[in-house]
Amino acid sequence: MLYLKNDYSLGAHPKIMEALEKTNMVHADGYGIDKFCDGAAETIKQKIGREDADIHFLMAGTQTNMTAIAAFLRPHQAVIAPETGHICVHETGAIEATGHKIIHVPTDDGKIYPEQIDEVMVFHEDEHYVQPKLLYISDSTETGNIYTGAELKALKNTCKKHGLYTYIDGARLAMALTAEGNDLTLKDLPSFADAFYIGGTKNGILMGEALIILNESFKEDFRFLLKQRGGMLAKGRLLGVQFEALMKNDLYFEMGAHANKMASLLSEGIKKAGYDFAQKPVTNLIFPIFPNELVAELEKKVMFEGWRKYKNGTSSIRLVTSWGTTENEIKEFLNMI
Amino acid sequence: MLYLKNDYSLGAHPKIMEALEKTNMVHADGYGIDKFCDGAAETIKQKIGREDADIHFLMAGTQTNMTAIAAFLRPHQAVIAPETGHICVHETGAIEATGHKIIHVPTDDGKIYPEQIDEVMVFHEDEHYVQPKLLYISDSTETGNIYTGAELKALKNTCKKHGLYTYIDGARLAMALTAEGNDLTLKDLPSFADAFYIGGTKNGILMGEALIILNESFKEDFRFLLKQRGGMLAKGRLLGVQFEALMKNDLYFEMGAHANKMASLLSEGIKKAGYDFAQKPVTNLIFPIFPNELVAELEKKVMFEGWRKYKNGTSSIRLVTSWGTTENEIKEFLNMI
Amino acid sequence: MLYLKNDYSLGAHPKIMEALEKTNMVHADGYGIDKFCDGAAETIKQKIGREDADIHFLMAGTQTNMTAIAAFLRPHQAVIAPETGHICVHETGAIEATGHKIIHVPTDDGKIYPEQIDEVMVFHEDEHYVQPKLLYISDSTETGNIYTGAELKALKNTCKKHGLYTYIDGARLAMALTAEGNDLTLKDLPSFADAFYIGGTKNGILMGEALIILNESFKEDFRFLLKQRGGMLAKGRLLGVQFEALMKNDLYFEMGAHANKMASLLSEGIKKAGYDFAQKPVTNLIFPIFPNELVAELEKKVMFEGWRKYKNGTSSIRLVTSWGTTENEIKEFLNMI
Amino acid sequence: MLYLKNDYSLGAHPKIMEALEKTNMVHADGYGIDKFCDGAAETIKQKIGREDADIHFLMAGTQTNMTAIAAFLRPHQAVIAPETGHICVHETGAIEATGHKIIHVPTDDGKIYPEQIDEVMVFHEDEHYVQPKLLYISDSTETGNIYTGAELKALKNTCKKHGLYTYIDGARLAMALTAEGNDLTLKDLPSFADAFYIGGTKNGILMGEALIILNESFKEDFRFLLKQRGGMLAKGRLLGVQFEALMKNDLYFEMGAHANKMASLLSEGIKKAGYDFAQKPVTNLIFPIFPNELVAELEKKVMFEGWRKYKNGTSSIRLVTSWGTTENEIKEFLNMI
Repeated sequence: MLYLKNDYSLGAHPKIMEALEKTNMVHADGYGIDKFCDGAAETIKQKIGREDADIHFLMAGTQTNMTAIAAFLRPHQAVIAPETGHICVHETGAIEATGHKIIHVPTDDGKIYPEQIDEVMVFHEDEHYVQPKLLYISDSTETGNIYTGAELKALKNTCKKHGLYTYIDGARLAMALTAEGNDLTLKDLPSFADAFYIGGTKNGILMGEALIILNESFKEDFRFLLKQRGGMLAKGRLLGVQFEALMKNDLYFEMGAHANKMASLLSEGIKKAGYDFAQKPVTNLIFPIFPNELVAELEKKVMFEGWRKYKNGTSSIRLVTSWGTTENEIKEFLNMI
Repeated sequence: MLYLKNDYSLGAHPKIMEALEKTNMVHADGYGIDKFCDGAAETIKQKIGREDADIHFLMAGTQTNMTAIAAFLRPHQAVIAPETGHICVHETGAIEATGHKIIHVPTDDGKIYPEQIDEVMVFHEDEHYVQPKLLYISDSTETGNIYTGAELKALKNTCKKHGLYTYIDGARLAMALTAEGNDLTLKDLPSFADAFYIGGTKNGILMGEALIILNESFKEDFRFLLKQRGGMLAKGRLLGVQFEALMKNDLYFEMGAHANKMASLLSEGIKKAGYDFAQKPVTNLIFPIFPNELVAELEKKVMFEGWRKYKNGTSSIRLVTSWGTTENEIKEFLNMI
Repeated sequence: MLYLKNDYSLGAHPKIMEALEKTNMVHADGYGIDKFCDGAAETIKQKIGREDADIHFLMAGTQTNMTAIAAFLRPHQAVIAPETGHICVHETGAIEATGHKIIHVPTDDGKIYPEQIDEVMVFHEDEHYVQPKLLYISDSTETGNIYTGAELKALKNTCKKHGLYTYIDGARLAMALTAEGNDLTLKDLPSFADAFYIGGTKNGILMGEALIILNESFKEDFRFLLKQRGGMLAKGRLLGVQFEALMKNDLYFEMGAHANKMASLLSEGIKKAGYDFAQKPVTNLIFPIFPNELVAELEKKVMFEGWRKYKNGTSSIRLVTSWGTTENEIKEFLNMI
Repeated sequence: MLYLKNDYSLGAHPKIMEALEKTNMVHADGYGIDKFCDGAAETIKQKIGREDADIHFLMAGTQTNMTAIAAFLRPHQAVIAPETGHICVHETGAIEATGHKIIHVPTDDGKIYPEQIDEVMVFHEDEHYVQPKLLYISDSTETGNIYTGAELKALKNTCKKHGLYTYIDGARLAMALTAEGNDLTLKDLPSFADAFYIGGTKNGILMGEALIILNESFKEDFRFLLKQRGGMLAKGRLLGVQFEALMKNDLYFEMGAHANKMASLLSEGIKKAGYDFAQKPVTNLIFPIFPNELVAELEKKVMFEGWRKYKNGTSSIRLVTSWGTTENEIKEFLNMI
């Protein structure tokens, strides 16, 4: 069975496993207070060019989103997000479970634009409405798309105008930063966000996300909130060890680039075979449109997820490549279509 | 520096690491729906003698407690717990953050007794009070103590009388079940609890707890709640792989027994050296009472936590042994006192 | 200043005040356990034809919605509601503050239709999504519209098919049941809802809503939840006294009909003056479209709320009549346009 | 049946009813933005000597406590309260339902003392514990006791030392300020509290509490939180009208003093009859100890609540007087014992 369902179907990159093995029998203090986490945090601070950042390591993406957002907002404050955002649809209401409304904004391409934020702000006029206070975006998006520097800058300016915080879900930031057409680096991100996270789970480590807090007012007591939401790992060192191995020598970018490259081979092949896409292929999530019969055939040999069904007998599906996808696997898939 | 601060200062037992390595490059579906988790669940069902149990793997203890308890209770229902319970003091109010009050019951030995539950129930008489609905206990307790079968049976009967659920925090269940004086087996536990968890984090795996749900009414939709609270791991297979390796061939019991044996050597040595204990030594947490000067000396060479300070110039400290503690380390400590 | 801003700008109907005066110096037990509440509940049970209903009196609408919905749902369950619903926009996220997501469904007329529910259900396919579990509708709607019996029946059937509960916000139910074109009576409602409330605040009493619980599974311990959410009034008797006076001799319907009649005079006059409406006038909320200059003029002499602004130099405004609106006031307004 | 069960068994003082009648047919804007609320707020600001205070009117005590406390704290912060506090026992976990733990402190007399706060602070040492952040006290207490100015000052200083806010539940503040031995005035309170409320429900109005916010950092967006928790009354004017009538001409103090005077007559008579008290009689809640046979007799003719049962065949009961209690009622009771 060919596996193109997601980017977390394997364990970790061998270099990550090696780092875990090597440090396995070293005693370390618990809950993220150890030299491995310190080292990883230091490396990240250098990579983003912000020594003043607070770095916290969490185990998973939903956990990171809900812990961060609930920590940053007061109870009456709401999140604005494009309706395809992970927090909108794929987190079983985790944000709302902490008490905060998400205001869904319609999107075709997975992105949100400044004028949509303006509209939300006009509508929410007084204390009978929730108070929109934080913009949530993902880069790359859940539709495989990326933001340009100019787009992020415009969003940040709009947020500033309205007194909104900006938070970037970087579950697949590695793929965004290594995509064709990308004009951003890790060092650019801090100027566009009050907080963001560098995703590890979907880019080759066993588990873990590095939350980067830039806004001074978010820093106080964050570890209390981390613990309270269940996001503090007893053997926190595991996250430190992995992120250190991930970030140094740029394994992080290498894996992101590889996933993109495999996706690119895949989408080129699909294009050549005469098929179109529901979303423009940009990063490691691609959404080809196939006749339903072909989809049915593929289901027998490939693991993937459906996307949309159309009335003309076709459907789009979601194909995902990762650091572990091989050229042979791509060829194998292209041979099927 | 000698490390006797807790039982999660190392990585994982080599056999666990080996199992992770071996399965690292196998594709598996996400979020706990994979053959590794299935296998581990099947093994656990056999070990506890209950094919009808639902098994869910979570990443950490606080996460398990808060997810389970919030899933089992309606909003007005409260937890009864001995005041030393992990949820009472060491989880930064995680249970209350899900909306539920914990009714603290005084304890000297870390355990709760039936008549204390009766008293709580008399006091909570109508809808102006929270409705006590779940008894939380830990075995072994946070004071290193264990429950006998007779004690658990009496608690279960008292709970039944009052319509209370029983939940056992098994973070250190391995140590309880291998302690001197223990008369319980894994197969006994289901008859004393509506749900309990088998702790992995504190017994030699990288991270993970196996939540066992026995009460039929708790089973429906539990995975929604797991996801919503941030407790679903993308690479859930990591938990399955580890728990399979932990439970088969009884590595689980072997490690628990080793931790207890090391603690026993330690407490015997301390006794011989003429010191007393704040809590009777039973499992891998021991609480010797030392003169403050000795404590100050120890702090230079040993990592441990303080427990209580007394007016007579002495203090009790908490020493913890684990699957990874060596006899040499014990000797090294005993040489210091 | 003419007051057409809402239907809660006066105190209470004189008969309500009289009932309060008359019972003022009678001792009664607190928190809704008194003969006045019992009497009012009995009257309501007769009016709705359901002796088995549980009736609870609350102080306000947002309070009723949030207490009821949070009591009926488990944490992972969500509400489906038309996007104009009171809980969606005008309750400052009160529902989300209890942990539940609201799935907003687009609407032009303030109503929701079965096929929209079907679509929501298809989209929410597994435990990574919230679980839609309750349909929230308002009758009359926040746009002044009403549901027919056939529409409510179709919604109820759709809900049944999907295992959804139905909850009707009856803040302005009196106006719905006395509107032209209405084919429903109080006795019909229980067959279309698992719970609904009869609004008092917007229909001539000082404050209060009567929540009617029909679904057996919602009844247990509801008073605990009422108390916990702050919705239990110490002098609960005040709500009983008022609802008894409201429901007996049909003062309830009389006031609703009066509000509608005044709105009808108003909309007829506006139509005659040549203006159109943003929503078809049905009950006591009407939404005429005026040139912006006229709106500016009106603002000097009339209290009302804006609705929408259009690009052609016109705006719609919201005019609301109540039990206390007089024909003279209507004439006064019509003279202005 | 004689009614000595609580201080909210009647409607409102005739002057309050009169004020409501007089303003009944005046149009006013909703949700507390009206001239009546403005007027009442102004009067209160003068009485407490603080023009900078923010005043909000809520409907009920539990609602006030939960709305205020949840507004003031971040999610990981906890409340310290004497274990007899209303929020600890009689609010069905309303505070915890907003996510905050209450740390119960043992008490015999219903009061808390500085050294008890010190102890709590020592115990809560890091981010694995909740962070104590607000002291909750009631004046008069749920045991009928009062604080002196010196006691409040000492508590405030202790709070300042630990960075704790102070919040005073003034449900029965009128009785505290008119009690024998009281050395406080309304003007003193602001210096001892970051926020407190003046209770109306238990002192002769239909319903309502006036929350007074003094701490600048609590003021922002409070109305959002008021609305979100269901505590905003559509006809907010009712609260303004009542508080204006209550506070002007000192009806507030008159009623509190009357309740105390009736309680004093009662306790004097009970003392003369040879009985003792479980709590020293100070305000309008008294707790005489009677033989169980006498209690059984009284239950047939008097409405009251039980307090404690003792092993020697006696019980204490709770007797409550109010603004509406008459000397004849006291005599009637005394004749029974």
